[in-house]
Amino acid sequence: MSELVFDPAAREAVYRAIHARRDVRHFVPGAVDEAVLRRLLEAAHAAPSVGLMQPWRFIRVRDAARRAAIAELVEHERQATAQALGPRGAEFLALKVEGVRECAELLVVALAPDDGTLFGRRTLPREMALASAACAIQNLWLAARAENLGLGWVSLFEPGALAELLELPHGALPIAILCLGPVAAFYERPLLELAGWRQARPLAELLHDERWPAP
Amino acid sequence: MSELVFDPAAREAVYRAIHARRDVRHFVPGAVDEAVLRRLLEAAHAAPSVGLMQPWRFIRVRDAARRAAIAELVEHERQATAQALGPRGAEFLALKVEGVRECAELLVVALAPDDGTLFGRRTLPREMALASAACAIQNLWLAARAENLGLGWVSLFEPGALAELLELPHGALPIAILCLGPVAAFYERPLLELAGWRQARPLAELLHDERWPAP
Repeated sequence: MSELVFDPAAREAVYRAIHARRDVRHFVPGAVDEAVLRRLLEAAHAAPSVGLMQPWRFIRVRDAARRAAIAELVEHERQATAQALGPRGAEFLALKVEGVRECAELLVVALAPDDGTLFGRRTLPREMALASAACAIQNLWLAARAENLGLGWVSLFEPGALAELLELPHGALPIAILCLGPVAAFYERPLLELAGWRQARPLAELLHDERWPAP
Repeated sequence: MSELVFDPAAREAVYRAIHARRDVRHFVPGAVDEAVLRRLLEAAHAAPSVGLMQPWRFIRVRDAARRAAIAELVEHERQATAQALGPRGAEFLALKVEGVRECAELLVVALAPDDGTLFGRRTLPREMALASAACAIQNLWLAARAENLGLGWVSLFEPGALAELLELPHGALPIAILCLGPVAAFYERPLLELAGWRQARPLAELLHDERWPAP
């Protein structure tokens, strides 16, 4: 058993990473040191997983042609989203929503085909595998912030097309294109707020006592 | 734009929280200070969310009868899981898998009914809402570790039954019963490893270059 105790300065650093983390779409030229990348991936891999199933798989994409193909997939979905948004489509297209072409490193996170783990996921099997992988990504995100690197989770893609591009087996599902790399600075608030797309709601509206409030 | 830079000590603290975080099922008597609970919930609420939809809802359960009813739901699912596990059922029942009755605070996290957000979730709407809520829970988990508090994510429940108990509206989905509170110590490694239930795989096996490896 570990008696490891966090002192106030260490605790403060953890909160700082949590509150200063941003979904980054603006990168500057530069590389991610291999040792740093390794630390980030080990941080992701230290995530909790239901029944210890570790459903996450990381694919590091460096090949220029494959990166370009991923950027095309994202652009295709960006256009499809704009169309689906109707009256706000043009406003959406004016936003910077990804940094696939500019980021130093591109990582795709996928769920592995279901390994049949029952522990803790008899009733919500897909959800609990996905939740585990999302926790891994959040670990990576916070670690990246602590390394003063930006990270953006791009979900603008058709999963079938991305799966085909990366030769995923049947049953695997890509859930994230992660753009990682040096940045000039971090946004003070979520970019969607700064851009006037949407305002976040305060915690008080999403926190309830004992039960869901009556309508 | 924020120029906030993490120095090595602060960076190290973030990694320490990530690697020392455990899925805790053993609690000791005690309370969680209201100010601490507030910090933890604000940490969760600082999570990224697709299209800034903030799909997470937190329900704090303090009523003794409701807590007992939740404990019963979990016990029911524990037995159902043991049965589904077949030959490993008895071994499973011998494990400590939750701390619902002993923990200082019980929080249920639910996904709100879909608000129709299209941004970043045209192709994977359910998955991206769930992933956002999982990131919020991971934030809370790491913050709890930095506060030297234990947290366990219990997913042993029938979501329909828990939804009914907490009067969730149609379309909302409970995804976690979080057990939070003081602990005597933290496990050195995941409890499922210590108990010999399953061994974690090293990162190298889950990390690929360029594409999924050929079978």
